[in-house]
Amino acid sequence: MRQAVLTGPGEFTIAELPVPEIGPDEVLLRVAACGVCASELDIYQGAAGHASYPWRPGHEVSGVVERAGERVAAPVPGDPVAAFVTTAGYGEYVAVPAAHCFPAGDVPLELALGEPLACAVNAVELAGIALADDVVVVGAGFMGQLAIRLVQLRGPRRVIVADTRDDALARAAAAGATATVNPAREPLADTVRELTDGAGADVTVEFTGTQGALEVIGSCTRMSGTLVIAGYHQGPPRQVPLADWNWNAFRIANAHFRDEATILRGMRAGMRLVTSGRLSLEGLVTHRFPLATIDEAFRTAIEKPEGFVKATVTP
Amino acid sequence: MRQAVLTGPGEFTIAELPVPEIGPDEVLLRVAACGVCASELDIYQGAAGHASYPWRPGHEVSGVVERAGERVAAPVPGDPVAAFVTTAGYGEYVAVPAAHCFPAGDVPLELALGEPLACAVNAVELAGIALADDVVVVGAGFMGQLAIRLVQLRGPRRVIVADTRDDALARAAAAGATATVNPAREPLADTVRELTDGAGADVTVEFTGTQGALEVIGSCTRMSGTLVIAGYHQGPPRQVPLADWNWNAFRIANAHFRDEATILRGMRAGMRLVTSGRLSLEGLVTHRFPLATIDEAFRTAIEKPEGFVKATVTP
Amino acid sequence: MRQAVLTGPGEFTIAELPVPEIGPDEVLLRVAACGVCASELDIYQGAAGHASYPWRPGHEVSGVVERAGERVAAPVPGDPVAAFVTTAGYGEYVAVPAAHCFPAGDVPLELALGEPLACAVNAVELAGIALADDVVVVGAGFMGQLAIRLVQLRGPRRVIVADTRDDALARAAAAGATATVNPAREPLADTVRELTDGAGADVTVEFTGTQGALEVIGSCTRMSGTLVIAGYHQGPPRQVPLADWNWNAFRIANAHFRDEATILRGMRAGMRLVTSGRLSLEGLVTHRFPLATIDEAFRTAIEKPEGFVKATVTP
Amino acid sequence: MRQAVLTGPGEFTIAELPVPEIGPDEVLLRVAACGVCASELDIYQGAAGHASYPWRPGHEVSGVVERAGERVAAPVPGDPVAAFVTTAGYGEYVAVPAAHCFPAGDVPLELALGEPLACAVNAVELAGIALADDVVVVGAGFMGQLAIRLVQLRGPRRVIVADTRDDALARAAAAGATATVNPAREPLADTVRELTDGAGADVTVEFTGTQGALEVIGSCTRMSGTLVIAGYHQGPPRQVPLADWNWNAFRIANAHFRDEATILRGMRAGMRLVTSGRLSLEGLVTHRFPLATIDEAFRTAIEKPEGFVKATVTP
Repeated sequence: MRQAVLTGPGEFTIAELPVPEIGPDEVLLRVAACGVCASELDIYQGAAGHASYPWRPGHEVSGVVERAGERVAAPVPGDPVAAFVTTAGYGEYVAVPAAHCFPAGDVPLELALGEPLACAVNAVELAGIALADDVVVVGAGFMGQLAIRLVQLRGPRRVIVADTRDDALARAAAAGATATVNPAREPLADTVRELTDGAGADVTVEFTGTQGALEVIGSCTRMSGTLVIAGYHQGPPRQVPLADWNWNAFRIANAHFRDEATILRGMRAGMRLVTSGRLSLEGLVTHRFPLATIDEAFRTAIEKPEGFVKATVTP
Repeated sequence: MRQAVLTGPGEFTIAELPVPEIGPDEVLLRVAACGVCASELDIYQGAAGHASYPWRPGHEVSGVVERAGERVAAPVPGDPVAAFVTTAGYGEYVAVPAAHCFPAGDVPLELALGEPLACAVNAVELAGIALADDVVVVGAGFMGQLAIRLVQLRGPRRVIVADTRDDALARAAAAGATATVNPAREPLADTVRELTDGAGADVTVEFTGTQGALEVIGSCTRMSGTLVIAGYHQGPPRQVPLADWNWNAFRIANAHFRDEATILRGMRAGMRLVTSGRLSLEGLVTHRFPLATIDEAFRTAIEKPEGFVKATVTP
Repeated sequence: MRQAVLTGPGEFTIAELPVPEIGPDEVLLRVAACGVCASELDIYQGAAGHASYPWRPGHEVSGVVERAGERVAAPVPGDPVAAFVTTAGYGEYVAVPAAHCFPAGDVPLELALGEPLACAVNAVELAGIALADDVVVVGAGFMGQLAIRLVQLRGPRRVIVADTRDDALARAAAAGATATVNPAREPLADTVRELTDGAGADVTVEFTGTQGALEVIGSCTRMSGTLVIAGYHQGPPRQVPLADWNWNAFRIANAHFRDEATILRGMRAGMRLVTSGRLSLEGLVTHRFPLATIDEAFRTAIEKPEGFVKATVTP
Repeated sequence: MRQAVLTGPGEFTIAELPVPEIGPDEVLLRVAACGVCASELDIYQGAAGHASYPWRPGHEVSGVVERAGERVAAPVPGDPVAAFVTTAGYGEYVAVPAAHCFPAGDVPLELALGEPLACAVNAVELAGIALADDVVVVGAGFMGQLAIRLVQLRGPRRVIVADTRDDALARAAAAGATATVNPAREPLADTVRELTDGAGADVTVEFTGTQGALEVIGSCTRMSGTLVIAGYHQGPPRQVPLADWNWNAFRIANAHFRDEATILRGMRAGMRLVTSGRLSLEGLVTHRFPLATIDEAFRTAIEKPEGFVKATVTP
């Protein structure tokens, strides 16, 4: 089978490898799509300190069960699923524990990207949104878009979305944001105060992973409110206005999880929402690339052209 | 001013009393409506052991601010509000701390019944519904109807509603229940298992206060799931299948609150949802009675004629 | 090897069976001791509806690793451990996943009963004791004794223990209870009110599994306090004063767990406390029986002679 | 009465002022002692941006009730209490709501410093220490010493304390720390790994408010463990190794509170522990100064001579 291997910064090779063997509790998945994750872009560009080559990325996988191990009751061959894999997703097949697969039902497989959905579900759960809370989401890329949809499902009062790209804000508004703010044009804190009776948001979630977001989120949030750091702050240490965060008694939530049980729980919940029609991912995959042009997929994800939300690779 | 006083079982008198004085932190409210609460019906019928007469019931009050104490910044005269009062709500005026009033905005005052809304909000919050949970609501009277709407706001997968009155089930379906069950005709547990992949609900909430509900809720709920007792179990001790509840490791939540801060928080959240349009109470007040016919209001609430959801008294 | 099999009510047979095979992730344990659990007594007496024979009980096992599967890194042969097994513990050997074993260190193996310790740890964690809480423990048998010791570790103010056996109360006092009450002689609620500034306890935990305890725990507990049902209420439905529990807004906690991850977490915590010397189980195993006299062990656990706390069977 | 007023950086004046009036819900307190808080030192030195003069500091007050307002049931004149005041504590009298006073019982009033105790209680509660957790405390000054004692009360396995002052470490050991580390001499992370089976601590709490502590706490803590920021990070933004904190999925807790109900709850718990003898503050007040030498008290708190833990001013 063919699989993408990153042999160095910016250099994918399509290797010819044997189809993986499966254990008795595993299934073999014919990959339908693998999403390009923002966390992979630094390594692709050689910017992440911890990269080592060759590297076989790809962890946002959906597919159809081709073969099931002897102890597997479900899923069965032919079942479409979203799968939790940690590596090597840009290929024709992956072997994965049956317990890491979640039914995709009638959802188009290119949208059945359970892994980022799990991250978004877990971030929104950790945010601890109470009924009628005012929520600010900073960053309306793919993860932000998932979060906006999930935040809506938690019964907030206002959902205020900030992004510097106007097309992202338009998508946020279409997804139900009650207000959108381009901080390049208006101070986010002022708008939020105005929309929240002067108090600030109950919960502010940032999905950008940038220094700038850390500087602004405190100013949008009420005393004793919650700051959720959902962006991945790769690279150098961040400057954090901790005196201010202390003084305002913010609850600080780090929405990153490594515990497998937590990730699987989020994935199960996310796929239940999607397959039952409670959550629509319609329109979020904007760019599709065959395996042979995976470099183009990554470059597009880096460049983020107008209208870009998410790229997938379809082997 | 006129105020209803219960002088004995089934006997309201309309007394003529002075308009209440207000303290510096209070407002005087011209009552618009006061909801008849199911918890008052036992005492009205002389069935509750702890009743003593004369008694001045009425705690689900909405109204317009007539006068504000000297230290009150908000609300101001003319403001429509929902108010948290504990007694004497069936009258023309009540004095209430300003901090116990919540803006009613454009919501019709007969629907701005903040107190039962607070109870429903707090019950649903305590239920701890996670994204994609399957939820069963047993009892689709007024409180159940509020809960169904609030449960929808928490991002569940399925919302299954049980009631023995078909008109109540029809209203539940209209409010978004994904399935309705009349347990007089079909075993609730079987239907729930079928709709939840054989597992049982993640959360089951009962709003009936009856012995029968306690017997059935466990059978609808998955191992380690949550049982919420939101009905008020007045009267004799209940028979609880505790061996079964132990064995199934249910989380048991008693959705009753006496802590004032909690009640006010629920009321604030509920009124924020209603005034922002996230939650509609449209159609839930089905019967209105002037103060002079308050006995009829109570008798109607006891009889629950076809189509009945909630009675209010409008002085 | 020899193993006890219950062939009918009150009839143990010592069967000769092959030593169990172990899988690659398992270890073979030479059993040092297996505690007699109160939950087994009903079945032994033929009183539990769900019993079926032959039955091989025994789930409170400690022992020494005899052999380890090929994928097991720890424990290694010779290691003393407490183990989580669900059945067949009254025998010379058990096969158990390595992940279900916890180091016993220098703790005498007859005291390394990790399974009941896990239950007690999880009950006390679920109780949610805050610093300076007043805590009532109803029932000072083996589980109650474990709980008293663990409650002490959570920083309470008062720990008030109730039991109808004076020798149990003496042990409770020795374990650090700040007050003991024999409800056969004095009304528990009165004493608790007196010792808690008239308020009632913040948390009341019952370990008896009896109807009587359910009737009394509410009267010891402050409004909005916590009732923990840690006793196992086998048999007929219980009469619960739910109107009172509703009115007092108690948090109700069902301290039973079936989720394996939770049980293992409790067992790990318990064994860490015991092996580090933070928790002493000294004196809690009062009666020891060789496998051949297991019937006597069970009869003693049923009769609870003066001074009895816990019986173990040592093969 | 005499009261200390800071008229500029480093300049206290003792003003002669009228004894405060009390409202109907307040008491007048004759101050016994007022602790010098580390958060006051920056302003005293003119280093805090937000200082404005004249300023009347002092918020760690104990005293005896001199007079009680007409609606006050308790405390009564003559009662020794710890009080929550927000300002002007360095004087002979303060007026304070009765609800902000907590009985000091037999505790020497110079040790009845309820306000810092409230902070420490709330920090330790927020840390969410589970039974048998391994806990690291970074910073063993006065707050760290309170925390070490409170952490012990939560049933940890190991309590590892780090400080650069050897005398502080000696006091930590005397208070029950299971290990002490001077990071100037040995790398904290290595020692912690060694003492925690290679895993890192479950919970790490820093009380220093320094940049250095933020750099080290992550390296002591296990994946998915908790970092508690209890130090007050006044001054410029801090450099936070957020990529590492993200990757390790730390729970981040900001142990600062501004919500009055939370502060009072912590104070009540702390004083209950102290008056019941569960918690000893013996030896923590090392330096006492009369009001006239308050400047010396502040300079001593800044210089922290060998053996220094806490200074109080006694009017």
